[in-house]
Amino acid sequence: MRSIKTSTQVCAIIGNPVSHSLSPAIHNAAFAALDLDFVYLAFRVEDVGNALAGMRALENFRGMSVTIPHKMEAVRHVDAVEPVDRQIGAINTVINDNGKLLGLGTDGPGALKALSEAQVTISGKNVLILGAGGAARAIAFTLGQQAHPAAIELMDINPDLRNRLAADLTAGTDTLIRSNPLTDHLLAQAMDLSDIVIHCTPVGMHPRTEACLVPAPLFRPGQAVLDIVYTPMETTLLKNAKSRGVQAISGVEMFIYQAALQFERFTGVDAPVEVMRQVVMEHLRP
Amino acid sequence: MRSIKTSTQVCAIIGNPVSHSLSPAIHNAAFAALDLDFVYLAFRVEDVGNALAGMRALENFRGMSVTIPHKMEAVRHVDAVEPVDRQIGAINTVINDNGKLLGLGTDGPGALKALSEAQVTISGKNVLILGAGGAARAIAFTLGQQAHPAAIELMDINPDLRNRLAADLTAGTDTLIRSNPLTDHLLAQAMDLSDIVIHCTPVGMHPRTEACLVPAPLFRPGQAVLDIVYTPMETTLLKNAKSRGVQAISGVEMFIYQAALQFERFTGVDAPVEVMRQVVMEHLRP
Repeated sequence: MRSIKTSTQVCAIIGNPVSHSLSPAIHNAAFAALDLDFVYLAFRVEDVGNALAGMRALENFRGMSVTIPHKMEAVRHVDAVEPVDRQIGAINTVINDNGKLLGLGTDGPGALKALSEAQVTISGKNVLILGAGGAARAIAFTLGQQAHPAAIELMDINPDLRNRLAADLTAGTDTLIRSNPLTDHLLAQAMDLSDIVIHCTPVGMHPRTEACLVPAPLFRPGQAVLDIVYTPMETTLLKNAKSRGVQAISGVEMFIYQAALQFERFTGVDAPVEVMRQVVMEHLRP
Repeated sequence: MRSIKTSTQVCAIIGNPVSHSLSPAIHNAAFAALDLDFVYLAFRVEDVGNALAGMRALENFRGMSVTIPHKMEAVRHVDAVEPVDRQIGAINTVINDNGKLLGLGTDGPGALKALSEAQVTISGKNVLILGAGGAARAIAFTLGQQAHPAAIELMDINPDLRNRLAADLTAGTDTLIRSNPLTDHLLAQAMDLSDIVIHCTPVGMHPRTEACLVPAPLFRPGQAVLDIVYTPMETTLLKNAKSRGVQAISGVEMFIYQAALQFERFTGVDAPVEVMRQVVMEHLRP
């Protein structure tokens, strides 16, 4: 990698744990590919307030990626938040603009980009979102505000989480929002109505890779499915979808694009997406 | 240099300006030479309190070098300070020990090491210190507490600064302290009495390299002189000393050893002094 100079701008991921993060490898490879005077580090953080106060004072600390468990808490410690991210209630990115910290999220836009790069049309389509946690919130708000779906249906086993997200989306977007418990019968009905399925729960993630919320027979050709889980890259959900001729988009694509969008906010230049994809693939390939 | 990992420990210099600092080049070369999982950055900082609060929160932010204008202010924001550095009233190093910040100074020990590595015996000798600013305070306290000189004589054109340092040294060391205005007559007397001369003012620093406080005829063989100015590496003061057969020690040596001592506090391992010297020489050679 490029050597550090006194002019080098610094970016970093903060979270706890951060030991398994791919972000330093991805962003440093991208900086190197474009010969940018940036470096990307990883910091283990519990006290997110003081970490962000420090970022403000360390003047060339340009950008942060914020991960678990700090995505919601970080909103309270920045100086400005993009309106959609305030509605989502979480951020994964902080930009230090001459001592003013701007918070924003790239998880929703990363999912949207993964879908649009795969030629999936969202406008006028019915979207089913499985899960109502942080990722579901980010993706539902982004799609609801920017992609003009006909409707978004939410399903989750937790009624409080689901009802709150449904109410927030109804208030915060122009999209028709439906919300239902995640039962076999209602899932079958929802799958039948849906053009696009976005899986936003941890089910199927390594090591419990056999688990899957949607049995293969519920898929039908013409649908597209995005699974935000990316370990493994091809989840059982995606395998089930493919077995029925459904377009299956891996969470790896969303992961790459959320990082690419962060990179563009850090540096102001287009991300070298293929370089970033290659680093991710090298690390995740079985 | 070695690539950044999530386990990489971070060190940095903070100050304003930091653009001309050699510290990133020196420390990164030393980390690389020993294949240590560390990286060293430079941060422009005005708000030293929040920079240090951030260091505490960014848990693997292991070490800081503190430079102008923050050496005194930083004392107020760390959790503990070495006793001698509290007496000096300034620090140039902060170690983050699991969220507890320890402040200390390596300028005085760096000067002491430069003298001892040059085989200069301080014990029982008369030391003349020209100047009474931050560097003079650090060196006088370190020598007074650790090197057993017969006496330290202070000379400075600023009587308040000089009298305060003399009083602090008398209270804080067992060494006999003399203090005099910097006049031609008194300087000649002091030079006649002194075995070791340490120049701690900016006089002779680039670009006004012809300036010099001590005319050549005042030196006498058997003396040793250390000039803390290191741009140029051989000041007019050192040239004058050499012309009289006096042992002349460049401020570069003190600069290298203060960095080496920081490195050892950051990493816990012996500093590769020759690697660090080579980097400094490459940058400073005319």
